[in-house]
Amino acid sequence: MATQTNLSINPRRLWDSIHDTARFGATPKGGLRRLAASAEDKQVRDWLAAACEAAGCTVAIDHCGNMFATYPGRRPDLKPIATGSHLDTQPTGGKFDGILGVLAGLEVIRTFAEMGYQTNAPIMVVNWTNEEGSRFAPAMQCSGVYAGALGLEDALATPDREGVTLGEALEAIGYAGGESVRSDRFQALFELHIEQGPILEAEGITIGAVQGVQGIRWHEVTLRGQDAHTGATPMGMRRDALCGMAAVVCALQEIGRRHAPGVASVGMAECRPNSRNVVPGEVFFTADIRHPDEAVLDEMEAAFLAALAEAAAANGLDVEQRRNWHSPAIAFDAGMIECVKLGAEKAGLATRDMLSGAGHDAAYLAPLVPTAMIFVPCEGGISHNEIEAATLEDCGAGTQVLLNAILEYDARLG
Amino acid sequence: MATQTNLSINPRRLWDSIHDTARFGATPKGGLRRLAASAEDKQVRDWLAAACEAAGCTVAIDHCGNMFATYPGRRPDLKPIATGSHLDTQPTGGKFDGILGVLAGLEVIRTFAEMGYQTNAPIMVVNWTNEEGSRFAPAMQCSGVYAGALGLEDALATPDREGVTLGEALEAIGYAGGESVRSDRFQALFELHIEQGPILEAEGITIGAVQGVQGIRWHEVTLRGQDAHTGATPMGMRRDALCGMAAVVCALQEIGRRHAPGVASVGMAECRPNSRNVVPGEVFFTADIRHPDEAVLDEMEAAFLAALAEAAAANGLDVEQRRNWHSPAIAFDAGMIECVKLGAEKAGLATRDMLSGAGHDAAYLAPLVPTAMIFVPCEGGISHNEIEAATLEDCGAGTQVLLNAILEYDARLG
Repeated sequence: MATQTNLSINPRRLWDSIHDTARFGATPKGGLRRLAASAEDKQVRDWLAAACEAAGCTVAIDHCGNMFATYPGRRPDLKPIATGSHLDTQPTGGKFDGILGVLAGLEVIRTFAEMGYQTNAPIMVVNWTNEEGSRFAPAMQCSGVYAGALGLEDALATPDREGVTLGEALEAIGYAGGESVRSDRFQALFELHIEQGPILEAEGITIGAVQGVQGIRWHEVTLRGQDAHTGATPMGMRRDALCGMAAVVCALQEIGRRHAPGVASVGMAECRPNSRNVVPGEVFFTADIRHPDEAVLDEMEAAFLAALAEAAAANGLDVEQRRNWHSPAIAFDAGMIECVKLGAEKAGLATRDMLSGAGHDAAYLAPLVPTAMIFVPCEGGISHNEIEAATLEDCGAGTQVLLNAILEYDARLG
Repeated sequence: MATQTNLSINPRRLWDSIHDTARFGATPKGGLRRLAASAEDKQVRDWLAAACEAAGCTVAIDHCGNMFATYPGRRPDLKPIATGSHLDTQPTGGKFDGILGVLAGLEVIRTFAEMGYQTNAPIMVVNWTNEEGSRFAPAMQCSGVYAGALGLEDALATPDREGVTLGEALEAIGYAGGESVRSDRFQALFELHIEQGPILEAEGITIGAVQGVQGIRWHEVTLRGQDAHTGATPMGMRRDALCGMAAVVCALQEIGRRHAPGVASVGMAECRPNSRNVVPGEVFFTADIRHPDEAVLDEMEAAFLAALAEAAAANGLDVEQRRNWHSPAIAFDAGMIECVKLGAEKAGLATRDMLSGAGHDAAYLAPLVPTAMIFVPCEGGISHNEIEAATLEDCGAGTQVLLNAILEYDARLG
């Protein structure tokens, strides 16, 4: 089954949208600082609303500021096919993370509008509030509220470091919308995003057909031994907390390697008292363990805890440990993934099945409606960084695949 | 050969000296903050000078503030037998480190004075300026100047963090002495010190007969890989600097264990950017490697550098490494060590041959004159800490052994 239409998006117009909106929160190093519900966020939201309305959409804003721009379809009885991502950024973020997904949705609608083409279902472009979680924690906050995974009142009451709540900040910028938060605004969701990893670039493939999001488990560990003089304390009488941590870091690397495509690593490590001639009496570190299969993730986590216990016993250390976050593994919808692959095939582009290692708004939606993601390469796999970069060609290719996938899905509604 | 005298020091008087002077720089937690050439250092120096003069000494101060209190002997043709240590402390130091050695010297002289006893050679109590190196780096600074290992002008020009030089600070407290720095003030040196390690306490032995000071080599290492997303970067595509460091920490622990009585460890470790979901792209750490035999120390250092190269290669890391300090191994004088052992025997105390893992003023003097050290236990081996503790009995025992050893040495001059 393949769609009969042959619509082409305009890569240059997409690229201009990305760079035109990059003035809202631009940093001297070429990145963006556009925190959720900030003055800069208001600027880009106003731009998006105006652009969507100019393309023929009606725009709705819900109580937590999520924006839904709907382009009409032929059949008003069908719920929209949605696409989108987020326009907020990290404090020193890039021009593509989230932004590509929203502006690609706009480009798809502009293409339909320009060609006078109407899908069966309406098409909806979504801008989720506070995906990054930098100003207000946690991340993916308002897609989580939409999906019912997080509470609306909790979200609106979340304070930033100055004590301003998300609700107050949304009021201040005029995006505390009048519409209730409900989970039935669309029937399916495609999210286009930069990969934020190095695989596509390394393999020279433009389109990642994302199969799901890895399950994530985070741990925090403190190991306590005894501060001691490095010169005066024989090796056998030490309780060196750093040696304990080092053994766990090495073990966790092996655990990651043994469980591909899973990954495992320590990101934060702090050594106390951190003095050249003192055997470290205490360390704090975090562990990040991911795998697409929860059963394998259980095994990896058990192996980590066993390595931790062994390292503590070998070095005479006390252990304080807790799992402080768990994001379950998500598998995307097989039919939606097929639409992405057919859409890529139609565009003459190879795809690679892959997993998302990072969390995305789409992960919250996957349990509710058929959902899939499309990845395009980013330079060096670098993201959450002002030097984040992607090419016009790859952004355009991803957007073309998004349009084709939407048409594939829409054709099945015919 | 044993001396005929039977002089006993007064442990309670020694203990009172320790606690009386502990008001100069006392901290709320029961420790001391008496930085070199500070107002508190002046207070304790004034106290020492007055106490030594009251006991019959003349006090000389050299250009770098070293204090030499000389109690006369029978034979003015002989150079003094010296004993001492330092009265400065770490920023959060204890009441015994260095202080015991100086006040034990005072107690020995007070004992001689009280009993009207005269040795053949004069007895000299020394207080070395800036042993700790906390306010002015490096440590053991003015014993190093005395011994000619460090330059006087360099030492006096050393700035603290506020830009005040050691020379200015000594002027300000009235201890920029009028006497030239020369290396011929005494013919032999005993230094009594707390062990600063756990061995004596663990073995229930009061007197350590110190054979020498371990050679020390310090290294600084930076490993550079690539920051990357913990979720989106497969294990095989990572350049995880923390994994490289962890392998080196584990290897260095093994190197230390294989080369007893040598020791080896990492004291400082910093992880960058130190974020839970970022594979660490850079680490900085220090290595501290010690052994009493320079040839074995060469082997340990070579094994460390090999482990570093291997860990860097295995993790795709760039290495920046330098040896930033080297303190050669020192062997104390056999005749002086014999005096210590005979002195302990006379006091009915068992001794244990041991090495000093820490650096001490005595290490700078050992190449110049016959030198030895006496160790007594400290609680839990803890030092450089406000909770540093030693008992009245052990301090008294060490001081009795010091007096006996001085008499043994002096008898040989007869």
